[in-house]
Formats: sequence, C-alpha cells, structure tokens
Amino acid sequence: MTSLPTTLEEARALDARDPLRSSRDQFHLPDGVIYLDGNSLGCMPKATAARLRQVVEQEWAQGLIRSWNDADWINIPQRVGARIAPLIGGEPDEVLMTDSTSINLYKLAAAAVRMQPGRRKIITEPGNFPTDRYILQGLCDSLKEQPELVTLPPEQIPDAIDRDTALVVLTHVHYKSGRLHDMQAITARARQQGALMLWDLSHSAGAVPVDLNGCEADMAVGCGYKYLNGGPGAPAFVWVAKRHHERLNQPIWGWFGHASPFAMSDDYTPAAGLHQVLTGTTGVLGASALEIGLELFADVDMGTLRRKSQALTQAFIEGVERRCPEAGFVLASPRDAEQRGSQVSFHHPEGYAIMQALIDRGVIGDFRAPDIVRFGMAPLYVSFEDIHNAVEILGDIMGHRRWDDPKYQQRNAVT
Amino acid sequence: MTSLPTTLEEARALDARDPLRSSRDQFHLPDGVIYLDGNSLGCMPKATAARLRQVVEQEWAQGLIRSWNDADWINIPQRVGARIAPLIGGEPDEVLMTDSTSINLYKLAAAAVRMQPGRRKIITEPGNFPTDRYILQGLCDSLKEQPELVTLPPEQIPDAIDRDTALVVLTHVHYKSGRLHDMQAITARARQQGALMLWDLSHSAGAVPVDLNGCEADMAVGCGYKYLNGGPGAPAFVWVAKRHHERLNQPIWGWFGHASPFAMSDDYTPAAGLHQVLTGTTGVLGASALEIGLELFADVDMGTLRRKSQALTQAFIEGVERRCPEAGFVLASPRDAEQRGSQVSFHHPEGYAIMQALIDRGVIGDFRAPDIVRFGMAPLYVSFEDIHNAVEILGDIMGHRRWDDPKYQQRNAVT
Repeated sequence: MTSLPTTLEEARALDARDPLRSSRDQFHLPDGVIYLDGNSLGCMPKATAARLRQVVEQEWAQGLIRSWNDADWINIPQRVGARIAPLIGGEPDEVLMTDSTSINLYKLAAAAVRMQPGRRKIITEPGNFPTDRYILQGLCDSLKEQPELVTLPPEQIPDAIDRDTALVVLTHVHYKSGRLHDMQAITARARQQGALMLWDLSHSAGAVPVDLNGCEADMAVGCGYKYLNGGPGAPAFVWVAKRHHERLNQPIWGWFGHASPFAMSDDYTPAAGLHQVLTGTTGVLGASALEIGLELFADVDMGTLRRKSQALTQAFIEGVERRCPEAGFVLASPRDAEQRGSQVSFHHPEGYAIMQALIDRGVIGDFRAPDIVRFGMAPLYVSFEDIHNAVEILGDIMGHRRWDDPKYQQRNAVT
Repeated sequence: MTSLPTTLEEARALDARDPLRSSRDQFHLPDGVIYLDGNSLGCMPKATAARLRQVVEQEWAQGLIRSWNDADWINIPQRVGARIAPLIGGEPDEVLMTDSTSINLYKLAAAAVRMQPGRRKIITEPGNFPTDRYILQGLCDSLKEQPELVTLPPEQIPDAIDRDTALVVLTHVHYKSGRLHDMQAITARARQQGALMLWDLSHSAGAVPVDLNGCEADMAVGCGYKYLNGGPGAPAFVWVAKRHHERLNQPIWGWFGHASPFAMSDDYTPAAGLHQVLTGTTGVLGASALEIGLELFADVDMGTLRRKSQALTQAFIEGVERRCPEAGFVLASPRDAEQRGSQVSFHHPEGYAIMQALIDRGVIGDFRAPDIVRFGMAPLYVSFEDIHNAVEILGDIMGHRRWDDPKYQQRNAVT
C-alpha cells in the first residue's frame, strides 16, 4: 500500500497522483460537505440531472407511450444489468436490474429452494443487514416447500453446510463493520455440499471487486443506490449463473417476465434466460438515473478502485487513532484492509451525538444502533483531503466535547 | 348526458364550457399529437419537470442522505397513498404507494388466502389484463396454503362464489373492452359468502369514481402510470380496508415494513396498520413524479370527471360510426356509457395497421392482440376537439385505405 498521508499537504499530494481523480469531477459534491455516507446513498453524478431532464421532458412528455420502443425503455433492465456485470464478475446476460434488493432476494431465494427438492435448510448469519433475514423469515413462513431458517455465527457456517442445506445467504460486506466474507472459500464449501450460494452485494458492488463466476457462486442480489450512485431508492439487481437459468422458477410471475408479454395470453409462460425474474413494469425514472451512475464505472479499473478504497479507509483509521487516541473510539472494522470493505466503523458510547455533531460540521457519515459511527469511503469521489479534514473535525469535536450538547441527542427517523 | 358535438364548432363550444378545461392546461401535450393512450401511459403534468429537478438537484444532490428526514422521503408511501384515497373511496390511512401492481397483488392475495384458513379457491376471470392471472398462478404454485385458481367467465362468477372461496380477484375496468364490473353487486356476493374481494383498479383510478368502502370491499391494487399520470413505470398502490389491518400478514417481509426499521433487529416485527405491506426502500424519483400527478386531482370533482369521460367516449363512438359506417369497425366496448370505463375499443381485422397509420398522423391510441384498436380518453386533458379531429383523421385513413401500406404492418416490441 502507498504510504499514507499525515498532513494536509501529503493528502493533497496523494490526491494529485490519484488515478481516479478525474472521477471525482463527475459528481456533484455539495459545498461545505465531506460526504462519507456513499455506502448509504451515493452522490449524484453531474450527468444525471441532464439525463433525467431528457427522460422526463423529451422521452416521456414528447415521446409518450412511443418511448417504450423509440427510447428503448423496454430493454432497460437488460441494459443496466449488463453495465453491472463487470463490477461483480458476471456475464452481461446474467444480470438484470429490477425491483428492490428485498423483493429480489425473495424471488431468488424462493427459486433456489425450489431447485433443491428434499433439502430444507437455509443458512444465514445474525446481525447483518436485517432486511435479508426478514425476507428469509417471511419466505419460510409462506413457501410450500417449508424451508427452515438456520442462523449461525459466521465462523460456524462452513461446518454447518450439509446435504440438507438448500441455500446459504450471506451479505458479502457487513453493513455495520465492513467485514468481508471470504467469498471464494464459503462458496466452495457450499458447492462441495451441493448447497446453492446467494450473495447480497449491497455493500460490495462498485466498491469492492467481486468475482461471482470465478467463485462459481450461484446467485446474487445488490443495491443500486449505494456505491452505484443510482439515486434515492434506485432499483436493485439480480445475478444468476447461466447454468441455472433454465431451471429457474421464481414465484412472482408477472407480465414483464412472460415469454410474450404483448400476446396478453391467459397463462404464464416464463421468458427464456434470466428474463423471467422480471415481474411488473420497469420504473423508468429510477432506472435511467441508475444507468448514469453505472456509466461512470465504464473506464474504471476495479483493482485501482480497490487500492484507493483500502488506502482511504486505512488513512482514516490511522488518522482517528492518531488524532483522538484517548477519545474512546474502538475500531469495529477489521484492521486488516484485505478483510475490510470500503467503510470504517467505530464503537463509541456517545456515537449518536458524535455523529450529529459531525453532520452539523458538514462531515456526513451515519450512526447504527447501538453504538456504531460508520464512515463510507466511496472511492470514485472521496479524496485523501476529505479524510484528512474529516479527521481534523472529529478531533476538534472530541477534544472540546462538542458532541455533549442536548441538540445532538435528539433522534431522527433516519440517520 | 350533454348533447354531443358533431362539428368542430360544436366540439369547441363544448370545450369552452368544460368545467375541467383548466386541467388540460396543467399538462404538457406535444404539438401535433392527439393523445388517446392515457390509459397506458398518462401525459406529463407541467409541474413534474420542475419537481423532479428539485428532487434530483436539491434534495438528492445537496441534501444527500439527510433528505430522508429533511425532505420527508421516508413518508412518501403514506403521503402519496393519502392523495389516492379520495379517488377510490378509501380513508387516507388505508392506501400506500409502493412497488408495482403485480408485486402488490402477490402480497395482498397471499395475505388474503392466509386470512381465510380452510378456504382454498381464488376466483378470477379469463381474458382480462394477464399479469393479474400470472401473479395468481405463481401464488398457487408457491404458497404453503396451496390455493387453487378457478377461472370463470364473469357472468358465472357470482354463483360460483361459495364457502370454499377465499378470495375473488377482478379488474374493475376491462383493459381491452373498457367494460365495468358491477363492483357493488359482486362485492356484496363475495361478502355474503365470507370470501374476500380484491379489486384491480389499474384502469379505474383517476378515470372512474370508485367507492371501495361504500361497497365494503376488502382489498385493492392499482397503477400509478395510467390515469394518475405518474410517469413511465410509476409506483403502484395498495388499499386494504381498515378492519383487516391487524390480521394482515403479507409474505414479503422487508425493513420498510418493520415496526422499527432503524433498530436493525434480527427478527421481523411487522409495523402497525397497513405499513407492514412495505418491503424495500422507496424509489424516490418515481414516487415524487407520481405525487405531482395526484396533486392535479386535488380540486377535481369525480362526478364531473365521470360525466366528461362518458361524453368523450360517447362522442368518439358516435363519431366513428357516423364517419366510417362501412369501414368494418365493430364496437368492443359496452354501448351503454354507464357500463364503460374511460376508453373505447373497436375490433377490426386490420387493427394493427390502422393503429400504426393513426400514430403516423399523430393520433396515438394502441393495439391489443388479436384485433383491438383501443382509445383512452383521460378526462383531465382530452378535449372534445381532440375527439372530433381524431375521428376525422380515422375517417380519412379508412376512406383512402391509407393503412394498407407495408410500412404499417411491421410489428414493434410495444405498442
């Protein structure tokens, strides 16, 4: 790893040599803000505003219904999916953009269970992003096959995968700690036992190189509004290895997944390939914004991105520990950059108030109960100067106990 | 009904007296286009472009993650739902905007079956908008309760609803013919037998007054991109009568439907009321556009809207039959305006080519296989002059066989 900056000058020098420095210019970054929350909602690419004006004021307002053909709205799920594929190690026809991460997980996990007759167990871990567990709980509560959800701490999972395991579902990068699962090893273990492996890439795609086909994984879902910069509540994506496409049978059958949607026939005939995962009409506005977010990855080398991400997170950890050694922060993320996604989290008993004080000073990260302050370093637009300045502001807040103010204690609905 | 215009001057005079004439000015209507496809994709309200610029360039670009609170993104499903409620005879807290019509139907139909232990049948009709049947077929294929789908022509449905019927699912306005079901009578029959009644309002909401609570219906779903003018692939909505909220248990459990989503607890606890129907993160761009579409209904009296809609469709039927008496059109819609939604359809063996020729001349309707030309009259923005001119152009196309040109035979993906 490059030697890390300890002064503003060194940070600026590193930014000047950053091979991704031109990417930062592609984003709208608000004045006075150091944005370390791209793992929750990515920044707006400058090109998005113009593209959405075109979609709304030309394609919709002028083209109206004709734009499903003329502006090729009909193929957005495939087109956006193909742009996601290289970021996750998939083939272009193995990825589709559609629905939300949660809905997609329901579809794929149900399809997986149905492909594994006689196997009942779905294995997952506790404490990771909860919607994945909720979806699996709801699936076990509703599906004819009556799968059983088994929740185990990650270190016990490899040994627990057995011949009764239909599916293993894990989130690659832990939403709180940023800990990376060993995708290769766990997938290999699942494969060895004949279980299918489904990865949630919500905190990986666009920040950590992923090689789904290299690992021989089976399925994946992921989020469009974090590191892919698709905008608030952007559509999500699915990946399914080509070898499973023919046997896939997800349960939410809709007209966009029909072999001939405009034949309007009474009976469902699934479309070929992955296409049958689609259900309802594509939301064109959200999809178009996501497409722009993905275009910014076109010329980005994922190895370069990863190296910058690791350097940013390392610089932040070292900076906080150097600047605030006695402030009570306990690192919640792996210290080894190889085992860490593109975020850094610390435990602190006053985490909530500290984060509010930071946001008040323009350093936007987020708080996750009960005591985690979380900082995401989206490598396309976060700079080493950002890291340096964020550490300085945090140092000031801690040194002067500026967080200890009643106005920073009041809880909002979402932070 | 007002006496209908037969000349351009009479059409203009009727437009001048139209109590909804100011609504038309709220929409962007492209030059040279007579748009009779608002039942497929509604026109763009002029205010939408500015609102989306605000959402993208201010709330997202500047506010970033803070806008979930500061711009109240978090409450969009409830806020938009409350605006839909008066159009369908629901209470504000009985409607939520979320996901697609298809996904919503899966959720509610599954919940309905689960509320009716011991009853196995789901009754629906053939030949209506097919995604509803696909969803029910997929549900029967996947749900633990193993419901059975019974498909019957509408006239046989009342007698078929029995004590083994869990749920009746019907689309209120037929997507092809525009035929209206008698919501009051069918719902009463279902209720008498203890079956739940779920209405698909995709072709009703915003065009035909609906009184779900007045009929004591149980559930409904509907579409945001047709008469509600929410934009291409806009989010859809659900309505559930308040008496069912506590027992509701839809199967796709996600964090947005959790009682405390930001507690990030491992186990799913459904939110109170209808809120548990939500699953994933709300797509803010599509939702914001839909919200603008609904604001245009704020001062609209639904009785006035219905009277105009009936006069428009009647004027079109009479116009076509007067102008093209020998052209081979056979009315596919009910002749009685009381039994018709806000659209007119004709059978014609050359329907596809005729529609292409019309579109080429700026009259945009659509074609539905095998032989239906379909014209939607969105009463907020279609004028009597539009109807008059559309009939004249159709008369010219038929009189000179202008549809009989190879360029009008080539099929597109979507029409």
